[in-house]
Amino acid sequence: MKVIITGGAGFIGKRLAHKILQLGALTDAHGAKRSVSELVLLDIVAAQGFDDARVKAVAGDLNDAALLAETLAGADSVFHLAAVVSGEAEQDFDKGIRVNLDGTRLLLEQCRKLAQPPKVVFTSSCAVFGGPLPALIPDTQELYPQTSYGIQKAMCEMLISDMSRKGFIDGRSLRLPTITVRPGKPNRALSGYCSGIIREPLNGIETVCPVEPSTRAWLLSPRKVIDNLIIGHEAPASAFKHTRAITVPGISASAQEQLDALRRVAGDVVADRVTVKIDPLVTYFMTSLPINFEANFGKSLGMTADANFDDIVRAHIEDSSQ
Amino acid sequence: MKVIITGGAGFIGKRLAHKILQLGALTDAHGAKRSVSELVLLDIVAAQGFDDARVKAVAGDLNDAALLAETLAGADSVFHLAAVVSGEAEQDFDKGIRVNLDGTRLLLEQCRKLAQPPKVVFTSSCAVFGGPLPALIPDTQELYPQTSYGIQKAMCEMLISDMSRKGFIDGRSLRLPTITVRPGKPNRALSGYCSGIIREPLNGIETVCPVEPSTRAWLLSPRKVIDNLIIGHEAPASAFKHTRAITVPGISASAQEQLDALRRVAGDVVADRVTVKIDPLVTYFMTSLPINFEANFGKSLGMTADANFDDIVRAHIEDSSQ
Repeated sequence: MKVIITGGAGFIGKRLAHKILQLGALTDAHGAKRSVSELVLLDIVAAQGFDDARVKAVAGDLNDAALLAETLAGADSVFHLAAVVSGEAEQDFDKGIRVNLDGTRLLLEQCRKLAQPPKVVFTSSCAVFGGPLPALIPDTQELYPQTSYGIQKAMCEMLISDMSRKGFIDGRSLRLPTITVRPGKPNRALSGYCSGIIREPLNGIETVCPVEPSTRAWLLSPRKVIDNLIIGHEAPASAFKHTRAITVPGISASAQEQLDALRRVAGDVVADRVTVKIDPLVTYFMTSLPINFEANFGKSLGMTADANFDDIVRAHIEDSSQ
Repeated sequence: MKVIITGGAGFIGKRLAHKILQLGALTDAHGAKRSVSELVLLDIVAAQGFDDARVKAVAGDLNDAALLAETLAGADSVFHLAAVVSGEAEQDFDKGIRVNLDGTRLLLEQCRKLAQPPKVVFTSSCAVFGGPLPALIPDTQELYPQTSYGIQKAMCEMLISDMSRKGFIDGRSLRLPTITVRPGKPNRALSGYCSGIIREPLNGIETVCPVEPSTRAWLLSPRKVIDNLIIGHEAPASAFKHTRAITVPGISASAQEQLDALRRVAGDVVADRVTVKIDPLVTYFMTSLPINFEANFGKSLGMTADANFDDIVRAHIEDSSQ
């Protein structure tokens, strides 16, 4: 079985790759469990750190049709993670459209050309929601995204549902919560501070919380994201009805609650490294996002969230020390 | 003021053009009422039948970027009606994508390049709804289109909302009911029979109703469509909040009720020219469509529906005899 991960050199892409290698087998579009013989990591830069004969790192542009055709030849499953993040898509409309919409379309068109329609797991986002929202959002909530990133993700969800209905692909769009705690440097995601206010103080670095402490977010740890991506892949096509979109479970926590958890887990010296200084664009983005979901469909497929935010902090400390 | 109508040689395009010429003035994106000095009808074939110095008929492809740029130069308002209809978009996925999605994108990109962001009135469709639906659909209903046509319209709605939020255009997407009674030959819209079962028997032609008589549709007369397109154009940008989509009011009627109205208005000899013979694709499409809407936002802007289906039949007879 040949599996592709776009964005395969990124943090989530690499963790997903390790998980797939460890599992050794996945369920294909016909419901057969098959060993993964080839795992292609496609990204702008070649993925590093894999010492496994099954892994092939490919460096290149998602909008390069010839490269995509070559890379996807014979693919059974595609995890499509590559994207321009929210901050960049909001500030550079054309780049967001080119990568998030056109890149995805090109990928889906290549998938459609394969002899066997592959499974396609698309990382959508809770940013597809926006506008007036109830406190607890049902799976049937109407989409009014208030950012270009959310709009582009919602448009791709539509296309994936339609191409799955037509039998061109076997797609599933996972609406991911904000992923926290991400390791490494800050990226240009507007929700990036969620990771920053935990990661930086743990590394001894003073940092800023750019939203009011009462600002809530919908959160999921990297570990759970990986688990849920696999569950989304393994679900049979028959589990889907009128849509291929799945709201992934998460937990709702305010910045204050996130910092309180940091204080409980890592102590006052660490937690005191965070000060609040409001950034208007980040505040606009975060307050446009939903903060609590039922996620009943995702749960019915077996998806789960972290038990609480303290666990998320502890998991990050554990993962960082590996 | 320069106004563009794409699909300007079509039935609705031409009626809209006549209405705009008769009105003589429209409200621009700055809220100023201005006389229409130039009305460009863009379509694959040149629009005929206009003897008015303000009208310019342009024949060409919506996907021709150079032609679009030239045609749109200095435009204040664009009515974007051109589209591949539902039946064709379902049977030819690539053509639907190329015209309904890419053509619209190209048009919006050209609008964005204008010195002043123009008003853009986009004819979306009630086909953006689908999947499980309540008997009376609120404005906040989630979109699960079950046809490629509906998917393409929904994707364009998203883009228009985002580009309006960004200030690139001043867009408004009108989700039109099935338009009945259309004159002339049947087109490839899957809902085309709604017109056919009234128009053909009135013309002395035996015809087939391809759905169960109990199958309901959401309907609007051409007269009301034109009125509502103008209302959608005239509404100030300030009337919109988190979305630029408007569900246009209509009336819900079953095929039986439509035929009963024909019988009341035109008599037994005419009504007896219709026989029922089920077509599976038309039935799939029509039973995937919603059948009754609140349309509160549209009504709040002043949009209205026909009083009843008898009026729709009478209006068609009146318009046909002109």
